[in-house]
Amino acid sequence: MGLRSGARERFLSACLGAPTDRVPAWAMRQAGRYLPEYRALKEKYGFSALVHEPELAAEATLQPIRRFSELDAAILFNDILSVPEALGQGYAFRDGGGIAMDFTLDSAEKIRALGSPEDVPARLDFAARALRLVRAELGGSRALLGFAGSPWTLAVYMVEGGSARQFAKIKRLAAEEPALFDALMEKLSDAVAASLNLQISAGADAVQIFDSWAALCPAAEYERLSLRWMRRIAAALPVGVPVIVFAKGMAHFAREIADAGAQVLGVDWTRRLSDVRRIAGPRLALQGNLDPAVLCFSDERAVRSRVRGILDEMRGERGFIFNLGHGISPDAKPENLAAALDEIAAA
Amino acid sequence: MGLRSGARERFLSACLGAPTDRVPAWAMRQAGRYLPEYRALKEKYGFSALVHEPELAAEATLQPIRRFSELDAAILFNDILSVPEALGQGYAFRDGGGIAMDFTLDSAEKIRALGSPEDVPARLDFAARALRLVRAELGGSRALLGFAGSPWTLAVYMVEGGSARQFAKIKRLAAEEPALFDALMEKLSDAVAASLNLQISAGADAVQIFDSWAALCPAAEYERLSLRWMRRIAAALPVGVPVIVFAKGMAHFAREIADAGAQVLGVDWTRRLSDVRRIAGPRLALQGNLDPAVLCFSDERAVRSRVRGILDEMRGERGFIFNLGHGISPDAKPENLAAALDEIAAA
Repeated sequence: MGLRSGARERFLSACLGAPTDRVPAWAMRQAGRYLPEYRALKEKYGFSALVHEPELAAEATLQPIRRFSELDAAILFNDILSVPEALGQGYAFRDGGGIAMDFTLDSAEKIRALGSPEDVPARLDFAARALRLVRAELGGSRALLGFAGSPWTLAVYMVEGGSARQFAKIKRLAAEEPALFDALMEKLSDAVAASLNLQISAGADAVQIFDSWAALCPAAEYERLSLRWMRRIAAALPVGVPVIVFAKGMAHFAREIADAGAQVLGVDWTRRLSDVRRIAGPRLALQGNLDPAVLCFSDERAVRSRVRGILDEMRGERGFIFNLGHGISPDAKPENLAAALDEIAAA
Repeated sequence: MGLRSGARERFLSACLGAPTDRVPAWAMRQAGRYLPEYRALKEKYGFSALVHEPELAAEATLQPIRRFSELDAAILFNDILSVPEALGQGYAFRDGGGIAMDFTLDSAEKIRALGSPEDVPARLDFAARALRLVRAELGGSRALLGFAGSPWTLAVYMVEGGSARQFAKIKRLAAEEPALFDALMEKLSDAVAASLNLQISAGADAVQIFDSWAALCPAAEYERLSLRWMRRIAAALPVGVPVIVFAKGMAHFAREIADAGAQVLGVDWTRRLSDVRRIAGPRLALQGNLDPAVLCFSDERAVRSRVRGILDEMRGERGFIFNLGHGISPDAKPENLAAALDEIAAA
């Protein structure tokens, strides 16, 4: 098998565990506030327009691609809360940071009143249009990623009413009204599947599911609260489109996540990738796991040395995609991401 | 070997992996806002007085012991930030939640200006006096626990200036000024060791080190940022006093934590205890790991069923102490903790 050198092929080969000429790389939240060109765009149009207007979403998606030639994948500029919004529960960002949903999903009536998953594709048409614009611009030069929040992670925001400290509401719902919880999760799973299928139809080569709140789940409940819904989603997607699951704090479930239909596991920085590989077996590709705080450092040599540490750990392994262990923070320095990507391209 | 039935012996036997008549139990933050009698005390005297006045600290420590006869251990009412305070960096709680240090430890001068660990015992004399009062009251009927934050966890608050979102400051300090970071950590380790030795002299039967921010550490850095400092502390404590390390999100380091000198590992709810036992080997006792959100449930049967799940998982295992996977939340229901403890006592 020859080694393809295009970025798109490199990325997709790594998802499937096939050999690549070098480790492919992208960064969670690579389109975002750490980029001055993003801040200018956001200042001019506002966050909501950047999400909802296809030309602006495409522009935000492409900004990091223009700046960093070594990025192997573009990921649609969007927000995981677009799916709750499409179901009728909008959101905003609090001034002090964190998310405020327009209301708290705190009754069976409100859960039943959510929109239908069937209407999700029409309501997320802006995302499909943005993806088509990006796809045309990229012309196959990069892999194009769609994404969504996991049903559990969305349910946490929806039932808690936004960013929370205690998370007792969602856990109480799951424990004390299991049928109602299941009904909500079924709806969310179908809505997420509809969103991902829409994105795939519009040109996404792979999709990532953010199970960002995975670590709220007790181990004995992870299957019931989150995994089974991701399995339902994976089963509703076309075969051959890689599914990446980012399950923060839950790499010890690598095998179960693979069994649920993931081809790639996104790993946070608390685990050595080589340890996760041992847990996961060779079938699951891994993605990660540079501590995003490293991109805030003032000395680029420290950034390069951390990146080399990760590359050394995975040297000779197939099925590896370089990424961060979490999204880029707003005070990251773009030149540090450039240095990290340069180190990968040179390796 | 006979099975001792006293609560203190039960707890200490479990720490050492010796057989016990039943699983011993206590709850992190068992003295706290979920108890109406604590809220009354705090309203009357204020949080600071509850920490600093020995009679009040003793009273807060004893409140849960009086209410829940099945508790096998009392833990001193105090705050991990007493050690930074003893070194000259005070703290307060923000109105919206979270911690605000009196200043941010953001220069070499400020780090050098911190007090000496040698002065810590005198400055924490109030804690020693509180422990002696509690010890006299308990008369050996319960194990008495002292505690402290890990040097890493304290450094996070001190260098970030309180509760933070990004944690880039402490990571930048550790990466870019390793000698200064080490100097700070040495001082904190000696201060924590002094605090724990003081508590042991005053009657603590065992001590818990809260490495609550452990999961901020990249795996490859956990030794340098946190573990080695806990090892330094454990080496400075008298042989025979069990050391419990609660390392949230880091149970995959169980073996290394045992090697650092812990006899017991506190485990959060994301891991099955049986899995952690496999990683840790039989030498390390485990403590955990009920999801504290369960204590907010409205149906006590759900609480009992979760507790039974944990007991079933560890049935027949020595070296197990029942606890929560994190501290009790303010909106926990005392009757739920009573039900959990009753379930354990009946098992």
